[in-house]
Amino acid sequence: MPAKNDPSDLIRRVRKGDHAAASRALSLVVDEDAAAEALSKEFFKSAGTVQKLGVCGPPGAGKSTLTGRLISRYRKLGLTVGVLMVDPSSSLSGGAFLGDRLRIMEHATDPGVFIRSLASRGMVGGLTHAIFGAVHVLEALGCGKIVVETVGTGQDEVDIASVADTVVYVTTPAMGDEIQAMKAGAMEVGDVFVVNKADLAGGDKAVADLKGALGLGRSAGQAPRAWEPPVAATSALTGAGVEELGRLLDAHWEHLKASGEGRERLKRQHATELQFWIHRHVLRRALERVDGKSLDELLAHKTDPASLGRRLLKA
Amino acid sequence: MPAKNDPSDLIRRVRKGDHAAASRALSLVVDEDAAAEALSKEFFKSAGTVQKLGVCGPPGAGKSTLTGRLISRYRKLGLTVGVLMVDPSSSLSGGAFLGDRLRIMEHATDPGVFIRSLASRGMVGGLTHAIFGAVHVLEALGCGKIVVETVGTGQDEVDIASVADTVVYVTTPAMGDEIQAMKAGAMEVGDVFVVNKADLAGGDKAVADLKGALGLGRSAGQAPRAWEPPVAATSALTGAGVEELGRLLDAHWEHLKASGEGRERLKRQHATELQFWIHRHVLRRALERVDGKSLDELLAHKTDPASLGRRLLKA
Repeated sequence: MPAKNDPSDLIRRVRKGDHAAASRALSLVVDEDAAAEALSKEFFKSAGTVQKLGVCGPPGAGKSTLTGRLISRYRKLGLTVGVLMVDPSSSLSGGAFLGDRLRIMEHATDPGVFIRSLASRGMVGGLTHAIFGAVHVLEALGCGKIVVETVGTGQDEVDIASVADTVVYVTTPAMGDEIQAMKAGAMEVGDVFVVNKADLAGGDKAVADLKGALGLGRSAGQAPRAWEPPVAATSALTGAGVEELGRLLDAHWEHLKASGEGRERLKRQHATELQFWIHRHVLRRALERVDGKSLDELLAHKTDPASLGRRLLKA
Repeated sequence: MPAKNDPSDLIRRVRKGDHAAASRALSLVVDEDAAAEALSKEFFKSAGTVQKLGVCGPPGAGKSTLTGRLISRYRKLGLTVGVLMVDPSSSLSGGAFLGDRLRIMEHATDPGVFIRSLASRGMVGGLTHAIFGAVHVLEALGCGKIVVETVGTGQDEVDIASVADTVVYVTTPAMGDEIQAMKAGAMEVGDVFVVNKADLAGGDKAVADLKGALGLGRSAGQAPRAWEPPVAATSALTGAGVEELGRLLDAHWEHLKASGEGRERLKRQHATELQFWIHRHVLRRALERVDGKSLDELLAHKTDPASLGRRLLKA
């Protein structure tokens, strides 16, 4: 019987759909264990086969409850689902997300659903790098749909857009002002927009405002798009509008496949993953050479970052 | 007469306090013009001499109005001020910040104030990299105080903390819920907290909640700190509380110098700047070697990011 940490055995078990193995592989990949590269290399082979949904939007928009609803829908359709809950803020903020976590965990006992959360270690690109690796594990596990949920506003969305095929931006009627400020950034990456809690006061107005803003975004010099991002109105709590949202997500996936845009996006995703790999690999090597002495030289202005950087890279 | 783009001439003019020269140097550094490295190398020599304030917090908190008030205060104290307005979201969202911009621009005609805005190009670490370079130009220009203002929640704050000596986290009574979710991340990096628009309903409660949360943060296993982040209540609109805030910022700067923490932070700032330099330098070199062919190999899964990355770095 092969050792528990024999990569080839672990890979075999993941491909067979073994959640325990996937959980272990995911930890190894995310923590960049010594075995990680061999694993990632294997798992990458199943990359880009299924739709990756990126669910983002401000805290409190109900993303997790909505994700829970989408999981139920996919399960009814006979699909297995892999979910990554990404916490871009510090480990300390775990508490803030616990409520959401609990709501989604009702699916944790379903053998057709694999849920794992990732917390940023605040490293440059650390989170996105980890997401790529984790997604490939879920792909190798054979998930029929993959959902990456992240609290995202501004730059975070750029990250999710570089990982997901379909970016779902979730907001609520109550978040009008916040969205005013975030809108432009969000609008560039959103493929499907959701006004959740649409049964609250101002729901219809929020939908109309968002549609109007999406129109403005275009008139502001953007080329007409083959896919015009639709706005769905949902109530994750009651489930209202979730089926329509699900159909929009399916439609976008069909669009990606039919138009060739999906292949272009996958290409961009791989390019980004490559960039992050190079970044982390080289940075790690270079940083191993950064000692207190060189930092003291910087402090004393005996050298500058560029000169020291070159020296470290040459070494 | 030396050519306008002669680095040494430009450097001389910046050191003399020439705003036009600083503006040009800043563009060169941020856009990484060919001359940029020579300039950065020179400007780095004046790094770490004056207090760098990082003003962050959610959109609509009134950061720019508050920054405007702080500028007035510093000017009254006879200090020149350099301000970088950082827009972490896409160029498109410029509109969302225009209102704030206008409010601060009243100082633009003051020869003792240098204001420049930076927009992210959505590159990994691109913004933080640019901020470091820009800050060194302001330091070389001889600014007595430097303010880096950024819309920040979650990860962005980690960036501002790696650039600024004193992180000022601005919120409002109206942003209770949002702050609930952001609090932990913000609390880790904030040195001084501000409840702006404190004259609005719930102002006192917001101050109390924030103080309570800061207390909780510590009891949650944090070591007692030499500097306990205070909470200031301001109304940037009326100017109420701004002088007290200013004194807290001065006190933190004194604390940094007296405790040696300032030197530690500067060391971390330099280390981060070095990391970003290595990151961008190596990434650029590596990406020059990424062609459509290698990306197609990834798409076809003939290779994987790690293997391709190694190949590109060896080449």
